[in-house]
Amino acid sequence: MEVFIEPIGRLMNEFSKLPGVGQKTAQRYAYRVIGMTEGEARAFADAIVNVKRKVRFCKVCGNFTEDEVCAICSSRDHSVLCVVKEPKDVIAIEKAHEFRGAYHVLHGVIDPMNGVSPNDIRIKELLERVGAGDVKEVIMATNPDVEGEATAMYIAKLLKPLGITVTRISRGVPIGSELEYADEITLARALSERKEI
Amino acid sequence: MEVFIEPIGRLMNEFSKLPGVGQKTAQRYAYRVIGMTEGEARAFADAIVNVKRKVRFCKVCGNFTEDEVCAICSSRDHSVLCVVKEPKDVIAIEKAHEFRGAYHVLHGVIDPMNGVSPNDIRIKELLERVGAGDVKEVIMATNPDVEGEATAMYIAKLLKPLGITVTRISRGVPIGSELEYADEITLARALSERKEI
Repeated sequence: MEVFIEPIGRLMNEFSKLPGVGQKTAQRYAYRVIGMTEGEARAFADAIVNVKRKVRFCKVCGNFTEDEVCAICSSRDHSVLCVVKEPKDVIAIEKAHEFRGAYHVLHGVIDPMNGVSPNDIRIKELLERVGAGDVKEVIMATNPDVEGEATAMYIAKLLKPLGITVTRISRGVPIGSELEYADEITLARALSERKEI
Repeated sequence: MEVFIEPIGRLMNEFSKLPGVGQKTAQRYAYRVIGMTEGEARAFADAIVNVKRKVRFCKVCGNFTEDEVCAICSSRDHSVLCVVKEPKDVIAIEKAHEFRGAYHVLHGVIDPMNGVSPNDIRIKELLERVGAGDVKEVIMATNPDVEGEATAMYIAKLLKPLGITVTRISRGVPIGSELEYADEITLARALSERKEI
């Protein structure tokens, strides 16, 4: 980045730490910041520092919150828990407006190839929640990939002896998609899990 | 963005002011910031404020600089000036390692449809530079689009009576590209401006 003067090169370097941002995009972002007013740039910088200062994990479900317990945990039915890998999965499910229970964020999935064992994710906390109270159903909503499926199976095995209903989100062809573009594994699953209409 | 807690929604809103950043990308960026250490987030925020505080325009050429006069103006031959629309064009030309003269950044091009007249861009400053001294050639390196061509022609008309050589960067098929994918206007230009080999 030696063609850039130091403050611009330094800001580009910071932008390039964001996911999917290469040198060209970092340059566009930096030039946009130069085009901002002092007040706009200050507001941007403040929002970055502010998010680190204010956001923490809900002590119940592990989702992002500003308080000790998140807004979802404070207001929802805890008899049905939806188990997800990451906080962003909570957002995705909330946007579907279908689920009215509470969440449990694992902060990862079991992935031995990358050194992530069951003890590295929030499985113990899930067992404690289930053991403590009136949970009737746990919906495993980890991703439909190898690690997500394995994690769902692992947790289901631990929960079933406790007399809990454990379910898994259905997998199949996405709504609005075309069969032609579905991958073979998805299509095979859609066929084998077909339902009578 | 009501599914997001306030500090995250606020940071997403700031990120979405960057060019080409929608809600989904803003969310990914915000989550990356949450995953940073306090020190990393602080460094990011500082780089934003710093770039606004330190970067200004070179009083000679109009390019970005930390000093009164930029490093290129301080060290290069001023007998050949390359006229560009924006500071990012200086970066693009510098990367080609072909030009060793100085620049003149117009900060825009003449664009009557969008209310940009010759007085709104740095044409007066260019005439002053040329009038003051030993400029022998001015290379018009505005973009090969309607406004860029018109601006190049407009400035050429002003400079020629001063006995200056005015040149235009060549237009044609890009090196490494395939004729099949060149647009008709580019191809027509490449043919009409053919050179004997």
